[in-house]
Amino acid sequence: MKIVDIKTRTFKYKTNHVRDSEGHGHPGPEHDATQTLLTIVTDEGPAGYAFGVNPAIAEQIFKPALVGEDPFYREKLWQRLKHWQRIHRNLTDNVIGVADMALWDLAGRCFDQPVYKLLGGYRDKVLAYASTMCGDEEPGGLSSPDDYARFAEWCIQRGYKAIKLHTWMPPIAWAPDPKMDVKACAAVREAVGDDIPLMLDCYHYYSREQALYIGRELEKLNYYWFEEPMDEHSTSSYAWLAEQLDIPVVGPETAEGKMYTRAEWILRGAADILRGGVGDVGGITPLMKTVHLAESFGMAMEVHGGGGGNLQVLGAMGIPGEFYERGLLHPFIDYDEVEPWLHSKIDAMDDEGYVHLPQGPGLGYDINFDYIEENSVETGK
Amino acid sequence: MKIVDIKTRTFKYKTNHVRDSEGHGHPGPEHDATQTLLTIVTDEGPAGYAFGVNPAIAEQIFKPALVGEDPFYREKLWQRLKHWQRIHRNLTDNVIGVADMALWDLAGRCFDQPVYKLLGGYRDKVLAYASTMCGDEEPGGLSSPDDYARFAEWCIQRGYKAIKLHTWMPPIAWAPDPKMDVKACAAVREAVGDDIPLMLDCYHYYSREQALYIGRELEKLNYYWFEEPMDEHSTSSYAWLAEQLDIPVVGPETAEGKMYTRAEWILRGAADILRGGVGDVGGITPLMKTVHLAESFGMAMEVHGGGGGNLQVLGAMGIPGEFYERGLLHPFIDYDEVEPWLHSKIDAMDDEGYVHLPQGPGLGYDINFDYIEENSVETGK
Repeated sequence: MKIVDIKTRTFKYKTNHVRDSEGHGHPGPEHDATQTLLTIVTDEGPAGYAFGVNPAIAEQIFKPALVGEDPFYREKLWQRLKHWQRIHRNLTDNVIGVADMALWDLAGRCFDQPVYKLLGGYRDKVLAYASTMCGDEEPGGLSSPDDYARFAEWCIQRGYKAIKLHTWMPPIAWAPDPKMDVKACAAVREAVGDDIPLMLDCYHYYSREQALYIGRELEKLNYYWFEEPMDEHSTSSYAWLAEQLDIPVVGPETAEGKMYTRAEWILRGAADILRGGVGDVGGITPLMKTVHLAESFGMAMEVHGGGGGNLQVLGAMGIPGEFYERGLLHPFIDYDEVEPWLHSKIDAMDDEGYVHLPQGPGLGYDINFDYIEENSVETGK
Repeated sequence: MKIVDIKTRTFKYKTNHVRDSEGHGHPGPEHDATQTLLTIVTDEGPAGYAFGVNPAIAEQIFKPALVGEDPFYREKLWQRLKHWQRIHRNLTDNVIGVADMALWDLAGRCFDQPVYKLLGGYRDKVLAYASTMCGDEEPGGLSSPDDYARFAEWCIQRGYKAIKLHTWMPPIAWAPDPKMDVKACAAVREAVGDDIPLMLDCYHYYSREQALYIGRELEKLNYYWFEEPMDEHSTSSYAWLAEQLDIPVVGPETAEGKMYTRAEWILRGAADILRGGVGDVGGITPLMKTVHLAESFGMAMEVHGGGGGNLQVLGAMGIPGEFYERGLLHPFIDYDEVEPWLHSKIDAMDDEGYVHLPQGPGLGYDINFDYIEENSVETGK
């Protein structure tokens, strides 16, 4: 089998997600947005699909890198795209990951198997945690510790067995504020009781001292983990923090460098629980490498972010990976609503808080090709 | 799909391989030997095969661990067999590896794909090195430095582009002898010229000082790597040796502990090139974990031993893994002769010294089921 073409299709949809001036998502007025489907076309019929690619990069990099190749040589093709990164500095791991996921999707579709069973399955369901949006200034949204507490109660009623707060960040005028973060965490603990695992992912540019203060307060509140309170490019800061805190420090998520960076974090003792997602490290191929690295050192690893790729890796992980990150959630947004370009939710959650591994082929997306066709837009590629 | 039965079939064949009193193989008089085929039977028809299992262990451990399970949950099943090891202390990684390889073989047969393309292929051929048997006292065999030199010349004519010597060991009365090891290495270097990579895997219980002496001589002879001259359970000895030598020290091979042990060797700087094979770490599943561990630290990893499982991993490895270990070879043995229970050699080598990844399904063994049936023997399981 050979790859004969790389196609992209950009299409419109309505959304009420907006971005603030620092890039964080919040609810807002409905407006048009676009999404792009990547298709890897083969000479024998089966195709592989993934969402979220830049059409120009698909045209300029994926085509010369992939066309003519056997799509089952995923390791070779991932290494090749990795080499391209030196020259095309805007070819991020996130973008490479879309190509890698489409190749895994293709393999699954060829054999009518979900990707996690090609990888070698470990489990067929994963406990989710409710992952909130960042704080805002919308009354009844996520504007106060009380708002977080009320929303946490709703999450528990919905079936979530664990909750992670993202708290207030700029451009909110008074944010960040370590004391407000702690107040929100305390209000949520008070609301849900002591048996629910709670996690915090706060402002990412606190000082060492601010991070240590928050961590100590989280320990008193029996929080389960503490995530990215400082710039992750300072490995030394994380080694300093993890050394002093009892609460597990989780990372890295944002720091570039794939599994290599994670190996160095292990060496430095910069995290208690390793972290990574398909979008962080460049797809399923390197995320499995990161999982295997963590396992070799007896370390847990928590998968960052949701979607089909991360879910399939969670199904194949022999070590925790305890949770699937479901969200981002907000009182004003119905996360369970199916995206218009899909026929069903990739990460539907049952009443016990479990997301079940999709049993459909590949990544598990049940794509509404009619919707995509009917709403496609021209791109300037 | 469910596993419904685990079968073993032990069968006779003629061989001229004999074992000395320390367990090393040599040529000898033809005699009967036995081999055992493991079969993982499913309710939907496809089966998975691997060779080299103990029938009693298959009956007592593999059956209760595997029957009733989905064979595509390889990670779950490997973790489960790993748990059994605490209780059944004779359940070695080597034995677990046979079950894991049969499960991978089954997946490949289900989808009519070689295992390396399920893993995600990287290459379709691998350079082999000629791996000699241990030294002996048979004139014209491997009884002297001159014998090694003559055999090395034959290996080069046969197409090998690299050679690894196993030298003299007990029960030979005068062995081990570091000076004789060096003489054999020098004779082979003299015979093949300076452009052929040469490696040494000598007596495994030398002292630190003896190992350092041999390593320094190998550096003068421009050897490519130095393997297991001391007991691998002493990680400190290997850290001591690797620190001083320029020639890459390769390991561990024999030390128990799967990818965990290899992680500690990396931390300690106990090897320059990591090592492992399916028989050492417990199958394809943990060997891929070891590969990914090595890659995360930018380290090369050389695969130990031959056969379908190791070959498939080499096809999927994105990092060197430069060589396939072909052998063990001896002037009196025709390694290219097909085993009677196969229709073709799993690791046929071309005239340029490459072993090509088998394109048949699963591990790539073309099994002669008629031979196995006709030569089967009762086992006392």
